[in-house]
Amino acid sequence: MPKLLGSLTSIPEAVEKASKMISISLGVRRVEIVDAQDLILARDFHAVIDQPRFDRSSVDGYAVRSIDLVGASINNPVVLRVKGLIKPGDDPSKYVVGPGEAVEIHTGAPLPPGSDAVVMYEDTRRINDEVEVYRPVPRYGNVSRRAEDFHRGELLLKAPRILKPWDIGIIAANGVGEVEVYEPLRIGLIITGSEVYEPGHPLRGSGLYNSTGYLVWKTLESMGFTRVHYYGVFHDDTDLLKEALTRALQDNHVVVTTGGTSVSDGDLVRDIVEDLGEWIVRGVAMRPGRPTSIGLINGKPVFLLSGYPVAAWTGLEALVKPAIYRVLGLEEPAKPMVKAVLKVKLPNVVGYRSYIRVRVWEEDGKLVAEPYMLKGSGILSSLVKSNGYIVIPENTEGFMEGELVDVYLL
Amino acid sequence: MPKLLGSLTSIPEAVEKASKMISISLGVRRVEIVDAQDLILARDFHAVIDQPRFDRSSVDGYAVRSIDLVGASINNPVVLRVKGLIKPGDDPSKYVVGPGEAVEIHTGAPLPPGSDAVVMYEDTRRINDEVEVYRPVPRYGNVSRRAEDFHRGELLLKAPRILKPWDIGIIAANGVGEVEVYEPLRIGLIITGSEVYEPGHPLRGSGLYNSTGYLVWKTLESMGFTRVHYYGVFHDDTDLLKEALTRALQDNHVVVTTGGTSVSDGDLVRDIVEDLGEWIVRGVAMRPGRPTSIGLINGKPVFLLSGYPVAAWTGLEALVKPAIYRVLGLEEPAKPMVKAVLKVKLPNVVGYRSYIRVRVWEEDGKLVAEPYMLKGSGILSSLVKSNGYIVIPENTEGFMEGELVDVYLL
Repeated sequence: MPKLLGSLTSIPEAVEKASKMISISLGVRRVEIVDAQDLILARDFHAVIDQPRFDRSSVDGYAVRSIDLVGASINNPVVLRVKGLIKPGDDPSKYVVGPGEAVEIHTGAPLPPGSDAVVMYEDTRRINDEVEVYRPVPRYGNVSRRAEDFHRGELLLKAPRILKPWDIGIIAANGVGEVEVYEPLRIGLIITGSEVYEPGHPLRGSGLYNSTGYLVWKTLESMGFTRVHYYGVFHDDTDLLKEALTRALQDNHVVVTTGGTSVSDGDLVRDIVEDLGEWIVRGVAMRPGRPTSIGLINGKPVFLLSGYPVAAWTGLEALVKPAIYRVLGLEEPAKPMVKAVLKVKLPNVVGYRSYIRVRVWEEDGKLVAEPYMLKGSGILSSLVKSNGYIVIPENTEGFMEGELVDVYLL
Repeated sequence: MPKLLGSLTSIPEAVEKASKMISISLGVRRVEIVDAQDLILARDFHAVIDQPRFDRSSVDGYAVRSIDLVGASINNPVVLRVKGLIKPGDDPSKYVVGPGEAVEIHTGAPLPPGSDAVVMYEDTRRINDEVEVYRPVPRYGNVSRRAEDFHRGELLLKAPRILKPWDIGIIAANGVGEVEVYEPLRIGLIITGSEVYEPGHPLRGSGLYNSTGYLVWKTLESMGFTRVHYYGVFHDDTDLLKEALTRALQDNHVVVTTGGTSVSDGDLVRDIVEDLGEWIVRGVAMRPGRPTSIGLINGKPVFLLSGYPVAAWTGLEALVKPAIYRVLGLEEPAKPMVKAVLKVKLPNVVGYRSYIRVRVWEEDGKLVAEPYMLKGSGILSSLVKSNGYIVIPENTEGFMEGELVDVYLL
């Protein structure tokens, strides 16, 4: 029997419940920074050096004592004796700049002791080992100050945080080649359904190929810090399924199942959750994806997704991924989004969150969006052929034709 | 000497030139679909089956002949003889529905021959092996029609295309377990600069640690279909560098270098490009990242990036990545973006494209953005600590305080 709205949990409430009832404990490991991309930083990272480690020139020119150049002008140039050239990487103490002296300097090179500013080539004229300077320069003019990027001891990266290229870059900038990250989140994936067959195998009866499993697998993998362990397709055999689920729970932090959530399907996974554990959420006020549920067995979460591909995908986007980010204390990464004008009215049943696949395109210089297919949680081509989706929130009756709405891009 | 705007190429022109002068030929390989995520589809993928392969029920109920139910109502129910139950996966020819007959059916099960519609449980009452039906149903009512998702021979995925989870799902839905993709784009990465040292090694003189190299490496890797071959840091030795560049060009489709692009730096990479090849673009009208250049050696592109991390990163985002997507015939993936109100004026030199790192946050229910650091192409912490960036296009004098602008999220 279809469940009534009253017994379904709203998506925000479901995520809230999940975040309170689920705790995931990930081990910490040390990895080389080149292997840390998209993994979760486990310990706050503090700078171990000043960056730059010394005052350095931000231009090509001459390192000088600013006091020597007071009053310098085209008509009244100051002449300094050039002691040599200092380049990036050179020892800063290669030369000392005394009164009336200068050192030629390249961008990025350290300021020699005694100097406190750099005049640009453009404001000088070189004559053998002397330079005429036509303009004064303030103290620290054209100088990047020591520690202006970061200073030793400064908190640079707060844990937990998904490591991005610039994060890895800044760890490297400190001369640190390894970093402490959490082990990947291990997710066991179990596909159920007596009608489901793996690609490459002959279909029997009215069997169909497993598409939902691959969609879910690769969507979970896209999170970056996950490792999906695929247990394959289970036909309707409670004992085999219970054994697989028990094994998957032992070997993983989280288990995800697809299928077996509709009444007529035999409800095998639901029976096992009720037998071995308890419900966190049983059914959500969402379309498609209403049967999406969360069980808790031996302290570990089991996310039950629909066997239908689109409903399974909305279950992932609306519930599974947000719950995982929340439980791990991570900010959910932003999704590409545009504003577009709706070509048609999109009604909604208040209380439900609806996911509508749309096509979005430019028309007369404006972005417009139109639903690609309003129903059909089994229509996978609707995800492939649409290029965006609209989320209608729980608390609205939908959107009007002509309304400007948020469209997430696929 | 700083180059004048007149001799610099605008970013759109540079991408255009690159797309015309560079051609990259990638080999094709067959991979398992589970290994195909984020790789580039090499051949159009057409459906090899109908999906669904048969008319199937979209509800739980009874498969019937719609003609039998004409005039059915609460007061005048039609009574049908139930021949049995058909479930998903069952052979469709398990039962045949004749006049006055029905077959109980679960969601997803195939319609038995003879039937052309399904009445829902809610509109029936079961009495032993008979069912009273209280409502008529149109032909194909509650039926998902054969091929409504896709039909055999239909073009499902057009090549080239970066394969996403739903793409892999739809290939699986066809029972196909392998797919033809392009080999990964091999990118050789060479870091130059006599002042640059690798993390984990002691610094000498005014040396600094290689951060730009790791930022570039991991940013290129984030494209998904790339494999970065890292050749390490080269101090100022033209012969060694030339040898490495030649080897990198032989072994990769593309070479990226950092450093050695400023006048004072010795210009080693520039000298080698001029010695062995030609320029596609030499310097771009962009801030930061003006020295970003593209050379062509033996028909292969060399992208020259600044040694400064932020300038190297803008060179990647503005030029290298767009050029690669364009040359490979791919649409560049959308970036997460929000609209925010500028807290300050952002002036721009017309002709230049400027990349401004910003902080964006919510204030009085609106998103606002403020530059995090206006200058400093060497200030890596500005990328780590900002959470977005604004691109000021070439043809504008900048943005006004209070203006609503696009902010790309980091």
